[in-house]
Amino acid sequence: MNELRDLRDYLKTKITGKTLYALPKQWFISHYAGKVSIKDGRYFVDPYEYFAFLIDYILENDKGFDYSKSLAMLNGEVKPIWIGKGKIYGALPRATVAYNHKGFGAFEPEDIFGYKESGTFLKMIALLPYLKTMGINILYMLPISKMSSIFKKGEVGSPYAVKNPVELDESYHDPLLEGISIDEQFKALVQAAHMLGIRVVLDFIPRTAARDSDLIKEHPDWFYWIRIEEVASYKPPHIPELPFKIPDPADLSVIYSNEEVKQHLAKFTLPPNKLDPKKWQRVKKMEGDILSNIAREFGIITPPGFSDWVNDPQPTWDDVTFLRLYLDHPTESQKYLPENQPPYVLFDVVKSSKFPGNEPNMELWEYLSDIIPSYQKRFGIDGARIDMGHALPASLQDMIISKAREIDPAFVFIAEELEMKNDEKAKREGYDCILGNSWYAAARPREFYKFIEETVPYLKVPFIASCETPDTPRIVVRENGDKLKYLAPALLYFAPNAIPYINSGQEIEEVQPMNLGLDNNIFGKTVLPPNDQFYGKLAFFDYYALHWDKANDEIYNYLRRLLSIREKVSEFYDGEFQYVYLNYQDGLTANYSFWKDNQGLIVLGNLNLAQGRYIEVFVNETAGREIEVKSVKVITKFGAKNLPISNSNVVPYELQPGDFVIMLINREL
Amino acid sequence: MNELRDLRDYLKTKITGKTLYALPKQWFISHYAGKVSIKDGRYFVDPYEYFAFLIDYILENDKGFDYSKSLAMLNGEVKPIWIGKGKIYGALPRATVAYNHKGFGAFEPEDIFGYKESGTFLKMIALLPYLKTMGINILYMLPISKMSSIFKKGEVGSPYAVKNPVELDESYHDPLLEGISIDEQFKALVQAAHMLGIRVVLDFIPRTAARDSDLIKEHPDWFYWIRIEEVASYKPPHIPELPFKIPDPADLSVIYSNEEVKQHLAKFTLPPNKLDPKKWQRVKKMEGDILSNIAREFGIITPPGFSDWVNDPQPTWDDVTFLRLYLDHPTESQKYLPENQPPYVLFDVVKSSKFPGNEPNMELWEYLSDIIPSYQKRFGIDGARIDMGHALPASLQDMIISKAREIDPAFVFIAEELEMKNDEKAKREGYDCILGNSWYAAARPREFYKFIEETVPYLKVPFIASCETPDTPRIVVRENGDKLKYLAPALLYFAPNAIPYINSGQEIEEVQPMNLGLDNNIFGKTVLPPNDQFYGKLAFFDYYALHWDKANDEIYNYLRRLLSIREKVSEFYDGEFQYVYLNYQDGLTANYSFWKDNQGLIVLGNLNLAQGRYIEVFVNETAGREIEVKSVKVITKFGAKNLPISNSNVVPYELQPGDFVIMLINREL
Repeated sequence: MNELRDLRDYLKTKITGKTLYALPKQWFISHYAGKVSIKDGRYFVDPYEYFAFLIDYILENDKGFDYSKSLAMLNGEVKPIWIGKGKIYGALPRATVAYNHKGFGAFEPEDIFGYKESGTFLKMIALLPYLKTMGINILYMLPISKMSSIFKKGEVGSPYAVKNPVELDESYHDPLLEGISIDEQFKALVQAAHMLGIRVVLDFIPRTAARDSDLIKEHPDWFYWIRIEEVASYKPPHIPELPFKIPDPADLSVIYSNEEVKQHLAKFTLPPNKLDPKKWQRVKKMEGDILSNIAREFGIITPPGFSDWVNDPQPTWDDVTFLRLYLDHPTESQKYLPENQPPYVLFDVVKSSKFPGNEPNMELWEYLSDIIPSYQKRFGIDGARIDMGHALPASLQDMIISKAREIDPAFVFIAEELEMKNDEKAKREGYDCILGNSWYAAARPREFYKFIEETVPYLKVPFIASCETPDTPRIVVRENGDKLKYLAPALLYFAPNAIPYINSGQEIEEVQPMNLGLDNNIFGKTVLPPNDQFYGKLAFFDYYALHWDKANDEIYNYLRRLLSIREKVSEFYDGEFQYVYLNYQDGLTANYSFWKDNQGLIVLGNLNLAQGRYIEVFVNETAGREIEVKSVKVITKFGAKNLPISNSNVVPYELQPGDFVIMLINREL
Repeated sequence: MNELRDLRDYLKTKITGKTLYALPKQWFISHYAGKVSIKDGRYFVDPYEYFAFLIDYILENDKGFDYSKSLAMLNGEVKPIWIGKGKIYGALPRATVAYNHKGFGAFEPEDIFGYKESGTFLKMIALLPYLKTMGINILYMLPISKMSSIFKKGEVGSPYAVKNPVELDESYHDPLLEGISIDEQFKALVQAAHMLGIRVVLDFIPRTAARDSDLIKEHPDWFYWIRIEEVASYKPPHIPELPFKIPDPADLSVIYSNEEVKQHLAKFTLPPNKLDPKKWQRVKKMEGDILSNIAREFGIITPPGFSDWVNDPQPTWDDVTFLRLYLDHPTESQKYLPENQPPYVLFDVVKSSKFPGNEPNMELWEYLSDIIPSYQKRFGIDGARIDMGHALPASLQDMIISKAREIDPAFVFIAEELEMKNDEKAKREGYDCILGNSWYAAARPREFYKFIEETVPYLKVPFIASCETPDTPRIVVRENGDKLKYLAPALLYFAPNAIPYINSGQEIEEVQPMNLGLDNNIFGKTVLPPNDQFYGKLAFFDYYALHWDKANDEIYNYLRRLLSIREKVSEFYDGEFQYVYLNYQDGLTANYSFWKDNQGLIVLGNLNLAQGRYIEVFVNETAGREIEVKSVKVITKFGAKNLPISNSNVVPYELQPGDFVIMLINREL
């Protein structure tokens, strides 16, 4: 019932008294009472003693509830509105809590002392107090389910190449917890988070699977198949008559009369169980990798994925394959197909939200919509992000969302929706917030201004207020990153409809992106010095450890202060939103304010990164009524102070280039 | 007795008829009679059929000898002078014959079809015809013995971190040869090479071992040991009173009175068998990695290696540790040491050639000097390079050389001697050639001139004429590499005392170095485009495949032509060496010639890479006698042609910038 307690008890039996396990200074809890020796800024502890102490510390918050239920269920919440008060930390545990625990030499995924230097759930537990102190109340984790290790893009499998969506990846097992199952370790992590008031949100990928998915064995017909000889030349057909676009029904006749498309269709075969049911029964039972056995015995293989845009220049997605969501071909396309066409993959098939078939693969849909409930029941997770939800048939998406909500009506769904203008659509589909693209705006002052002034006040659902994400460049490596690393979080985290988001590593000014998926190019992976062990490595595809030892705590403390203030002033967000009435406006002074009774919260940001600005805030005009200004507290990146009060209702202020100020009118902190 | 034949027979039993194994065009033998399908320039074959055919082709050269003996022994050669007629190809098999045999997606060390994409001995056999055609008669391989996989610097163990010097690394096993031992596969490789007249030279490393060497189990006292708590701070002590230097005996008092040295010495402990003999007996028998068990049970570990220069800025060598060559401390240092000092590592200990002890570790010396004989007896290798031979005690070096020569008097030893001026020393010590530093000179026109004119004619032993080596930058990425890739091999391969050397990949204009050890810096690993799978990777530490598919055959054909001409004119090297008498000399027109009777071989290279030169060769003055010039054949990078003959004994020629010309006087090809 309480796996966290079990872990603690187990760890206590293992204490050796030898302080040979290094921890970065940031993770170390300052009141630790066990043995410790400090070398070169690293804290060497007995890992059993340390983690036992740490869990004891977390258990101080144990009020005897069943923390393997979602916090909403524990609290009796019935609506998923808690996301609106969320402060999210986004982690890829493999990298987030990777560390050279030997304390010498280079990072190794597993080392000679048997320490797992790559991330584990146990180490994620150890990170929770650090997150809690920073002000985090939602831990969002990239996929942690079983990853594939074939057709890898780097040293290690991508979390998005899901070999088994309901099993946890064994790499997260910590060898310090020998004999304790990975499920128990993850349960303990969720319990620990819940005790600290931190909710757990996971990432799920219903549209694709690893090429060698575990599901193949029982369900070969949930997959598409091509002959092995065709793999080398397999790629999305080029349609010279069409531009780069998501196809419309009117494009189908052009697509299907294309010669390359005809050749493409001819590459597909029936699944192995249809090709030779008897042989299939035999192959199914063979030892070793199922895909490998099918490839050898049938000469067929699952094809790589590709984009649902016609003429997309990106290469095939070699580590994933599409799941077969319909048992028949897309309705609109059937008339163009040769007789006996085996199940195939094309732009229309892939975009089944737009090109459905007539026969949903119900067994698969049931399976897919049962994945999240399985995590809810086993671990009590609080929410989910759905990857590529926009490509799913509407009814499948519905099933996924409603099954989770049957268990936990306050279960949160985050839409992988980058377009801010699709807020209403996302809401209609049942999502509680959208990812949005604040990370794009934040790096472009004029866009940022429009984003803050014109977009966010009018959203129908909140958005993830991120300066950077696992897919984008880091905020510190953006042009003027030294200013933006302060300005962007300040403007974003206080904005209307914002859910403050900290991307793992952002708080220690990590420069290396985790992936190059958004707003980056191939040179984005070359930002570390070449003598760095992780030069050129991406956490999605390679082992990666954040640069804890090289970091100071400046940005961590800064973000912590921002989140803490944001929390303290949260009552303003039930108040009136107003733009700020200034002595002038130039399209670069971002501004917004909230008012409640005679108190005001004013946020100003100078998006001119080269030039300072003297401004005057007209308080009455901003609030839309007479406000007697008795005190003005200003919060800057350096701290907080009270401004002297004049008799006029005008507050003068000098903004440095790229500077921001948060003003509290008649409100102390 | 004939493992090659056994392999062939085995392969034939496995033929499937499916052409799913891709080979690069360069390896493919043009008269292949098996099934093949060509896609995107790659040759898809049934690997069993292909390799069987290929071995059959090699077996056509089988004259019924025992090819598991060195070629010298087969030929009855009694002196190691064959090296002087050598044409070497230097390979790191793991990378040299790495290839994406799937023919789609990315390179993977092992793939879903069970193909080993990283290098294997079987694939080295398949490369032999390609090498033979190029004119190679010596295959030099970097260490192929069992590598360690702890404290790695990259994805995979370094060939220089030797876990077991007498065992072959299992990674070279080809899964196509299931059930056939790695020793048999290597035997077949040596036999195949020998049948083709190619000798096999291996690299050996007597001075260091992997940190977790297999030798620890039986001989813990052949290693140095430090307490684990000391590893994090373990590094060569800094001696502020001394410059960057190899210490002299006079420096010892300064070194040993240094405070950091005293702390350093205190880190060492006795070996585990001395610390607690009973416990050692128990730990020795434990399952799992021996070093791991020692670390856990005794709290001690083997220390990383470091340079024998005082104040060397390079970091510790984390993947290797020094072997304990003497049972006592260096004689000259003993008086400075505290009583009961356990065996330790310091600049003097490491440089035991200069600072020997009184008690050689004879058992270890016997072991080390038996390594090469073991390879001679088992596989019939033809020669060896000794890594760091210069740091070995003279008598150990003697033992190593003489034991090998007892078995095979014509066994060749290559000295890891980069200084050309140490030619005589190397010869005295029993070496047959030196590595030298032609790769350094070749990249620097003025140095190159001096190297060719002043250094090579006077060597006491031949040198390895290399434009690039596994440790250096590639010749094509040097400044003016587009000219040097032709000029440097031409000038070097025909020079006096030269042993032409082709560094694996040089022939296909590979740009990425294998290691950054010499004449490079950290940016040297960033020469590939960042979207290349092998961007930032070094073959010494990471999986790496040469870029066969992107290469054309221009440089291969060029080098092949050079080596073929070099072979055809070899009789000149018994003739008279002469500088070339030109109409002028500017210190940038490299020149040398050889004369035999009335025939001459003249080599000229314009090391002015920006400017062409009109030159006149004075034949009589060059030869030192009257030569009636009846024909002049010139060989350039474009081909060969005869010059018109005038009555004068002056041959005019126009050299383009960076151009070379080989002139044959009164000699056809």
